[in-house]
Amino acid sequence: MTQISEFGEFGLIYHLTKKIKLTNSSTVKGIGDDAAVLDYNDKQVLITTDLLLEGVHFDLVYVPLKHLGYKAAVVNFSDIYAMNGHPKQITVSLGVSNRFTVEHLEEIYSGILLACKNYGVDVVGGDTTASLTGLTISITCIGEAEKEKIVYRNGAKGNDLICVSGNLGSAYMGLQLLEREKLVFEGQTGNIQPDFAGKEYILERQLKPEARKDIIEQLAKKGIQPTSMMDISDGLSSELIHICKQSNVGCRVYEDKIPIHIQAAQMAEELNMNIVTAALNGGEDYELLFTCSIDDYEKIIGLKNVGIVGHITKSELGMNLIGRNGEEIPLKAQGWNSLKG
Amino acid sequence: MTQISEFGEFGLIYHLTKKIKLTNSSTVKGIGDDAAVLDYNDKQVLITTDLLLEGVHFDLVYVPLKHLGYKAAVVNFSDIYAMNGHPKQITVSLGVSNRFTVEHLEEIYSGILLACKNYGVDVVGGDTTASLTGLTISITCIGEAEKEKIVYRNGAKGNDLICVSGNLGSAYMGLQLLEREKLVFEGQTGNIQPDFAGKEYILERQLKPEARKDIIEQLAKKGIQPTSMMDISDGLSSELIHICKQSNVGCRVYEDKIPIHIQAAQMAEELNMNIVTAALNGGEDYELLFTCSIDDYEKIIGLKNVGIVGHITKSELGMNLIGRNGEEIPLKAQGWNSLKG
Repeated sequence: MTQISEFGEFGLIYHLTKKIKLTNSSTVKGIGDDAAVLDYNDKQVLITTDLLLEGVHFDLVYVPLKHLGYKAAVVNFSDIYAMNGHPKQITVSLGVSNRFTVEHLEEIYSGILLACKNYGVDVVGGDTTASLTGLTISITCIGEAEKEKIVYRNGAKGNDLICVSGNLGSAYMGLQLLEREKLVFEGQTGNIQPDFAGKEYILERQLKPEARKDIIEQLAKKGIQPTSMMDISDGLSSELIHICKQSNVGCRVYEDKIPIHIQAAQMAEELNMNIVTAALNGGEDYELLFTCSIDDYEKIIGLKNVGIVGHITKSELGMNLIGRNGEEIPLKAQGWNSLKG
Repeated sequence: MTQISEFGEFGLIYHLTKKIKLTNSSTVKGIGDDAAVLDYNDKQVLITTDLLLEGVHFDLVYVPLKHLGYKAAVVNFSDIYAMNGHPKQITVSLGVSNRFTVEHLEEIYSGILLACKNYGVDVVGGDTTASLTGLTISITCIGEAEKEKIVYRNGAKGNDLICVSGNLGSAYMGLQLLEREKLVFEGQTGNIQPDFAGKEYILERQLKPEARKDIIEQLAKKGIQPTSMMDISDGLSSELIHICKQSNVGCRVYEDKIPIHIQAAQMAEELNMNIVTAALNGGEDYELLFTCSIDDYEKIIGLKNVGIVGHITKSELGMNLIGRNGEEIPLKAQGWNSLKG
């Protein structure tokens, strides 16, 4: 293992970033100056940033560093797609304590670079600094979109369809599985043996999530312009409330329409948890939630991996989940880490 | 005092950011969506990011939170000016442990917002998250510049003049003073009493640095296009080496030309330190280092707060400091935190 102190600051940055290849024509200047230079003409610039802290956003007991790097990048791409844009560049700042070696940092970077390769994104800035405790990852992503294509959260209109990509609650159930296995690993429980068989999907959703570039591409291909959109990082319930409040509308979402993966449902049953609660309030799915005009219904049902879960109503009617027996349950935002409590 | 837990995540962000006013025409969308939207036409976009960690980059024993917020923003602006651009937007991510209250965060934000007001910058994204230990501040700054005006580090040519704004070593001597007073405060020394009289300037340089917007404006006014430029955050010696290596040139810098403030010199004497070493290797001055054609000599000497400290040479001649007795001393990059040892 190589100690970080064996490199100087600049040697370390060079070492970590020398393999980076710039691929976008808009990237005029990447790492190596005070700032990156980006060239845009008719496009608009999108920017998003995310700070990940050890022990809060990730637990190195069960998250491999390469996966962590991958995920840290992808969650930022997801924010850009949620604007109907395309991520193009990121900057990466790492704070690392002396328990990390150069090899550890290389692992993180290899995950970041793999994500960048998969999504066609350039790393244009890097910064690695000492930390007294733990690992900190801060990533900023810049994206572009045509001005008239950008989708905000405040455009949902009465009768719009509410659509969700993929399925919900899987990342949260993957986290529950990892937490259980961590207890086993730490010897805090007796009999239960680690068992990931048949649970690969929910593990991957937690450890190596993907951003829904495919959905954005399908929307463009079909000529669908959503009226509002965001990614689902804090649970469907919380995100729907954002869209409704910012659009000044209400909504009705149907419990039996919420897409659930079989592995997530099985895991919930095994842990005696309610999978609908996990789907509504569990975080980190990074699926897309969007609304669109009912006139687009025919186009929407032709999309792959997109389901209609409800519709927008007048503001006065409130924001409700319609249960399997027709009962109306007001949606609640659970706030941060409420499920982790 | 209000506990952070009394707000939900979104309530806290709203609380912290509700006073933000957007002022730039290029700011299409600020806080409140997945990403900020910026509109640029003939300008190029500049982006820089900085991660500050408690105990590494700042010590809350002697750094007031408002000053910390101000400085965290200004150091990013400095990076944009160092490209000959103008900062326009920032995003702010804070990681805070539960020993911080809402009032603490307000103090940090008030400093950030004051800096933004002073420099005409919009806050376009915010994120506050729990941390297990200490305070983390991550700021990303987006700036703009005309394409042909952007100044990189790699354009210095033989015989170019080497220029420095303001004076060097003051922020470092301010830090030494604060460290000494911290020891007094902690009762680790006996006789010395806190004494800031006559040292206000170096304290301010450490606690509330400014970015050299004025220099960028003067350069534009006088029609001077530097051949290379960067800000001096790690000491003149280290930054000159960056410029020389990237430009494939050498340099000669004259010890007696290095601008030193009287308070910094006095502080160095009091602490029995070498002020030239502090000026060459002390960090956080945030002055501008730039090179320009000797044809601009007449214009340069007309600039306020800019001094010529040396000139660029052929690469073979190396990078040297010329001492007061004419001796050549090779410049060395001290690497990170070397002076903090």
